[in-house]
Amino acid sequence: MDILHRVGIKSSLNEVYKALATREGLAAWWTTNTQGESKVGGTLRFRFSAGGREIGGFDMKVLELQPGRHVLWEVIDGPAEWIGTRISFELRQDGDYCIVLFKHQGWKEAVEFMHHCSTKWAIFLMSLKALVETGKGAPSPDDVRIGDWH
Amino acid sequence: MDILHRVGIKSSLNEVYKALATREGLAAWWTTNTQGESKVGGTLRFRFSAGGREIGGFDMKVLELQPGRHVLWEVIDGPAEWIGTRISFELRQDGDYCIVLFKHQGWKEAVEFMHHCSTKWAIFLMSLKALVETGKGAPSPDDVRIGDWH
Repeated sequence: MDILHRVGIKSSLNEVYKALATREGLAAWWTTNTQGESKVGGTLRFRFSAGGREIGGFDMKVLELQPGRHVLWEVIDGPAEWIGTRISFELRQDGDYCIVLFKHQGWKEAVEFMHHCSTKWAIFLMSLKALVETGKGAPSPDDVRIGDWH
Repeated sequence: MDILHRVGIKSSLNEVYKALATREGLAAWWTTNTQGESKVGGTLRFRFSAGGREIGGFDMKVLELQPGRHVLWEVIDGPAEWIGTRISFELRQDGDYCIVLFKHQGWKEAVEFMHHCSTKWAIFLMSLKALVETGKGAPSPDDVRIGDWH
């Protein structure tokens, strides 16, 4: 089972790719606490906080980095439901827009946490869009809350 | 294949249910152009516009209305990919929050339009949350744009 999303960002492929393929880019829309190296075979460590304390995070192995086209990660540490799943961002230019097709693939069960993560990914992709279009995203810990699970 | 979402709304079950189970409620967070009758066996007609012109919509047969618990529709007219799919809102109270589990079930293929609709549903559920928590949603035609497909 997969979480799927699509956003269109008024931008070049290159600007969006930079936001997905560099630690600085990721820190500006997903979580400010992003560590590690964005290179194939490297590990990225994302940590999230709320109310001043760390509430968890994910370690991702970088599987693919195709400039202007594709970023693919595999989750190697984090919540049990996430481990072994893959996160993919496919890019293409369509007129004025860079189209981002997002997939979080390989969920074993449609648990309530999957519902939550689906909504939260949409919110973070809107943060990516805002970052590229306006220069300012809303990464954790200043991310938009969607409920009691943050 | 299903689109799944979860939001937590600081509210009673009853307030959220009203926003999902009445024409007036639906018009205040999904689309202002909502017609028909929200009763079991009735049909609701949702139409969307952008830039001053109608860009399409959906007709839904109301299958279930369980006060404070569940709303279920079946799509009977609209884009080919939507026809025959079902849209479900399950509610429960969890402390201060009304938890909404959303499912748009029965997509035949993971087409690009499904990716788009997944993101757009998240945005509209945030509009539902804003409506109930603040009194003001962002229904079409004043909905938040997510890209070239609106």
